[in-house]
Amino acid sequence: MYRAGMAQAAQALIGDSEFDRDTAVTLREPGVYDAELSAGWTIIHAVNGGYLLALLGRALGDALPHPDPFTVSAHYLTPSAPGPAVIRTDVVRTGRTLSTGQASLFQYEEDGTEVERIRVLASYGDLDALPDDVRTTALPPAIPPREHCLGPSDGPAPQIPGSSAITDRLDIKLDPATVGWAVGAPSGKGEMRGWFGLADGRDADPLSLLLTVDALPPTSFELGLKGWTPTVELTTHIRCRPAPGPLRVSITTRNLAGGFLEEDAEVWDSADRLVAQSRQLARAPRG
Amino acid sequence: MYRAGMAQAAQALIGDSEFDRDTAVTLREPGVYDAELSAGWTIIHAVNGGYLLALLGRALGDALPHPDPFTVSAHYLTPSAPGPAVIRTDVVRTGRTLSTGQASLFQYEEDGTEVERIRVLASYGDLDALPDDVRTTALPPAIPPREHCLGPSDGPAPQIPGSSAITDRLDIKLDPATVGWAVGAPSGKGEMRGWFGLADGRDADPLSLLLTVDALPPTSFELGLKGWTPTVELTTHIRCRPAPGPLRVSITTRNLAGGFLEEDAEVWDSADRLVAQSRQLARAPRG
Repeated sequence: MYRAGMAQAAQALIGDSEFDRDTAVTLREPGVYDAELSAGWTIIHAVNGGYLLALLGRALGDALPHPDPFTVSAHYLTPSAPGPAVIRTDVVRTGRTLSTGQASLFQYEEDGTEVERIRVLASYGDLDALPDDVRTTALPPAIPPREHCLGPSDGPAPQIPGSSAITDRLDIKLDPATVGWAVGAPSGKGEMRGWFGLADGRDADPLSLLLTVDALPPTSFELGLKGWTPTVELTTHIRCRPAPGPLRVSITTRNLAGGFLEEDAEVWDSADRLVAQSRQLARAPRG
Repeated sequence: MYRAGMAQAAQALIGDSEFDRDTAVTLREPGVYDAELSAGWTIIHAVNGGYLLALLGRALGDALPHPDPFTVSAHYLTPSAPGPAVIRTDVVRTGRTLSTGQASLFQYEEDGTEVERIRVLASYGDLDALPDDVRTTALPPAIPPREHCLGPSDGPAPQIPGSSAITDRLDIKLDPATVGWAVGAPSGKGEMRGWFGLADGRDADPLSLLLTVDALPPTSFELGLKGWTPTVELTTHIRCRPAPGPLRVSITTRNLAGGFLEEDAEVWDSADRLVAQSRQLARAPRG
């Protein structure tokens, strides 16, 4: 299966892609899943929070009677590292249209002690069973055409400082209006916008949207702050199964105060549907 | 203690008010708290979700080493009713500046079986220990002066359908631009704005902010939808200890689709600080 314009590159399919292999979970016993955190999704030295969320989301999708994440609230406890992990799930409630579950991802100390990395509460449903009504008043973000946006290979711009394996697995092209930070001229606005895809061309699904909401550079870069913006809590609503094709992502910060900031993400699909909304509370960088 | 303009009405104090008495929890054993859900905070027949959140927030503030809710994610499982309840808490992680806990509120079946109503994950800190920096770019909502806004006693306007004991305990004055629903002429915009206070004059604190974010009529009324908008999940960030005086609350819905909608709330204090931000996913009314 080839896509026009992708010059002979075979497009990876949902279920058979880097993302799917690296978020695979293996049932160890009822409700408990083994996983391997891939070094391929690290940003600087930390494992990306959206990638971890997708892993937890996959485990919960197996443990719960409903297939799709509708709302996932994650509290980040300790930094994850590439390597083995275990996800322990708990079915909280099963309803007709929604079920609710809890999941924790643990890694191991040298002596084998489990250390909790993230805990999530999530309500799952069936996106394909929802009615067709759309009364969205939000408008898609005004992002220039993809060919006018900038990726890591486009000259001086956006290289995230430090080694970031994840950039090889993502196909992100940022709106030139939000890449001032990469050339030392941040806009001062808490905005980051761009086109998002997976590098192997795999289309989006509800699980990959959990990655997408936390995949762009932080808005704090455009606010002139350098350094790390660790997530305290991230809640994501998946509202619609995304259509094939590239996604547009817009991230906004309106309240940087007291050493914390919020980041609101919106993800729009190629059919102009608002497919995901998220908000996170993060610690502001010191710098 | 009297407040100018309140005509001899003694202002209730934080810690000695209806809200404090009705959100009191009693330690039964370590981590377990008994509570009594008051009939005074019901809307139609259901106990208000923000009131329940404040109860859970109070229990967690006791169970965790840090005093203030920074981010609280609540998943609503089954409808609560006035009467006895028990809150079971669990300390997930204790850190220097933040600690994370989990809490569930249960009520009882006739045979004594516990039924879970809500589960929350929350990260707590110390608001008074935060640095003073404020780089908020958001602006307070444009709400007319309080005396030009409308409450339940102001003529034809905003009476929530059905018996709603909570309206006696709140002092809400809505922006006339968002009360069209009350006279059969909804604006069609997903907006609700107004002034918020507690009827006994108690000032706001972080716990009462958990009530405030879910206390206005739903935006769906202004979208022309009648009926109930049950919350699936509600996440609230408390960003600053509110200054004394009335609060301004703005609620916005941008994505009503597939039978669900989000409601974003912002709460501003009398010192023009954005003190709380929340987002909920709710089921859209059928009507």
